[in-house]
Amino acid sequence: MIPARPSQLPIAITMGDPAGIGPEIIAKAFREDPAVTAGCFVVGDMATLRRASAVVSGPGRPLIPVAGIDAPQEAYATPPRCIPVLQTPQRLGPVAVGRVSAEAGQAAADCVVWAAQAALRKEIGAIVTAPLHKEALAAAGISYPGHTELLQAQAAAFLGKTVSDVPVRMMLANDELRTVLLSIHVALRDAIDAVTPENLLETLRITHESVGALLQRAPRIGVAGLNPHAGEGGLFGREEIDIIAPTIETARRAGMDVSGPFPPDTVFMRARAAAGEPGEFDVVIAMYHDQGLIPVKYLGVDKGVNVTLGLPIRRTSPDHGTAFDIAGTGRADASSLIEAIRFARVLAP
Amino acid sequence: MIPARPSQLPIAITMGDPAGIGPEIIAKAFREDPAVTAGCFVVGDMATLRRASAVVSGPGRPLIPVAGIDAPQEAYATPPRCIPVLQTPQRLGPVAVGRVSAEAGQAAADCVVWAAQAALRKEIGAIVTAPLHKEALAAAGISYPGHTELLQAQAAAFLGKTVSDVPVRMMLANDELRTVLLSIHVALRDAIDAVTPENLLETLRITHESVGALLQRAPRIGVAGLNPHAGEGGLFGREEIDIIAPTIETARRAGMDVSGPFPPDTVFMRARAAAGEPGEFDVVIAMYHDQGLIPVKYLGVDKGVNVTLGLPIRRTSPDHGTAFDIAGTGRADASSLIEAIRFARVLAP
Repeated sequence: MIPARPSQLPIAITMGDPAGIGPEIIAKAFREDPAVTAGCFVVGDMATLRRASAVVSGPGRPLIPVAGIDAPQEAYATPPRCIPVLQTPQRLGPVAVGRVSAEAGQAAADCVVWAAQAALRKEIGAIVTAPLHKEALAAAGISYPGHTELLQAQAAAFLGKTVSDVPVRMMLANDELRTVLLSIHVALRDAIDAVTPENLLETLRITHESVGALLQRAPRIGVAGLNPHAGEGGLFGREEIDIIAPTIETARRAGMDVSGPFPPDTVFMRARAAAGEPGEFDVVIAMYHDQGLIPVKYLGVDKGVNVTLGLPIRRTSPDHGTAFDIAGTGRADASSLIEAIRFARVLAP
Repeated sequence: MIPARPSQLPIAITMGDPAGIGPEIIAKAFREDPAVTAGCFVVGDMATLRRASAVVSGPGRPLIPVAGIDAPQEAYATPPRCIPVLQTPQRLGPVAVGRVSAEAGQAAADCVVWAAQAALRKEIGAIVTAPLHKEALAAAGISYPGHTELLQAQAAAFLGKTVSDVPVRMMLANDELRTVLLSIHVALRDAIDAVTPENLLETLRITHESVGALLQRAPRIGVAGLNPHAGEGGLFGREEIDIIAPTIETARRAGMDVSGPFPPDTVFMRARAAAGEPGEFDVVIAMYHDQGLIPVKYLGVDKGVNVTLGLPIRRTSPDHGTAFDIAGTGRADASSLIEAIRFARVLAP
């Protein structure tokens, strides 16, 4: 897919919940892909990363040393297959692996806040976030359910805006397909209600700008319908006629390269880049979570990358959670994190 | 995928709407795959098939002769790369290609009714249906919107039952994935309302029996959730808790191998058979049209096969329509029809 390229600014990888697989997959990424991790550093806890490095070492898999750094730029001075760690102010005591704890939640959030501030000050080029655990955040009294909201709040405060004035959208991407979701974690009934002209137009605007910045040209945006066959002329639902088509027209008049609404069951296939051929669209707007995630994940989750669009912070993350059930075993797969780092390099200035 | 095997009973291919691509892809299938089409015959109009054969012939693509037969068993006596046609009683005058007409709609329906009767009398092993055109059926005064309803009515009359006592479900299948849909051509809002214990249990029963007959063992059925993350414990919708999980429990108590509800964005990936490895499930129950069709079509529509489950008639069809826009040009791709014939051979006794 998109090749790694040297980045002027270092990339911060936040360690994620220390009780999850985050520290382990970070250690694996530095060991397995020194080219992609060059110029990256971890925002986290030295002792936690050392433990993770030990967990993933073994016969034929050397222990990766952890090196403390004091500033992002030192990431470039760290030798390959060595993990540069910028220690967060609060050193973390031992945390029980695979368990929700307030300490772990707080430590994970601290890393994200530190990285967000550094990104907003333009000291780093992008953030790659290892997984958080929602319940651990809640246990620590943190009122944000996840990364996106945490980052959104930091960005809004920095810009002197309200959170609602810094709208974000989630993009899922892999080698073949990019999709931006109109809504995420809501019931399907509520997702249908979220198909409004305002939401769609905002999503198109954010996608046009963010994917445009990535591609260095206006992206070809395909819009999925909501209903089977995109409503078949109103026979199976009217959202396409009443909401989606007129909004696409508005976006086109504003100069965006947008087309649709297309039948949901073929638009992703048409957008798919395969066998070296680009697809018909650079990105597909999905009307709800699973419409976009089913095709992105169908060929395997290991390469899926989550990209937050709309923020003045470039941020990617692997497309999986803390996997408490296998944390501490060293079995977690670092592929998605490695892809997220690779994608962050493309995004970073 | 599933290899062709000799079938005791011949397989009928209905010609579909003569103004569409049906006759052309049938001619191509006989020319391109004599092994798969051995023992198959066309129910249709001789002159229409002759014209179609001429359309798809050309340099390096010999004209395939059309041979009239009087009974299904004669299909086996027809030489390879020759199209055995059982002429329907009404010979058809010239039909304008790519146009809706009552004559074309009536002729197409006549073939389906003839084939249904033959299947119910057990003179043929299965039916493969080339595409109909809904508007042409309506123009002919036929009150059924498509094949499924036509076949259902024939089966109900044969069995002395009402149509509602012969419930059917649509299965979409390709090399990698089988999925059975809880609802088809309704708005997404109405599809949510169709997620009921009765509908799901009936779907599970039909799937268990039909896919079981295909595999000669109890199929491993995976059930998708309706909402993102299968509702995440009720946070994003309660259908999984209130409807889907209890119905799965009922089906398990009835002896079916059913599990779920699983997050929709990964259940199809888990069910996918790839690189010679079987997936985790033999078939996935999709809660709505696009949930199942997006993954089935993602890798390309050309190999998708539509199978009608629940009828005393074995029936498959290609996963596309009449394509009036390219009918008569000889450009239509016969891959999906060939897969449908291959699948019918597997189903046929």
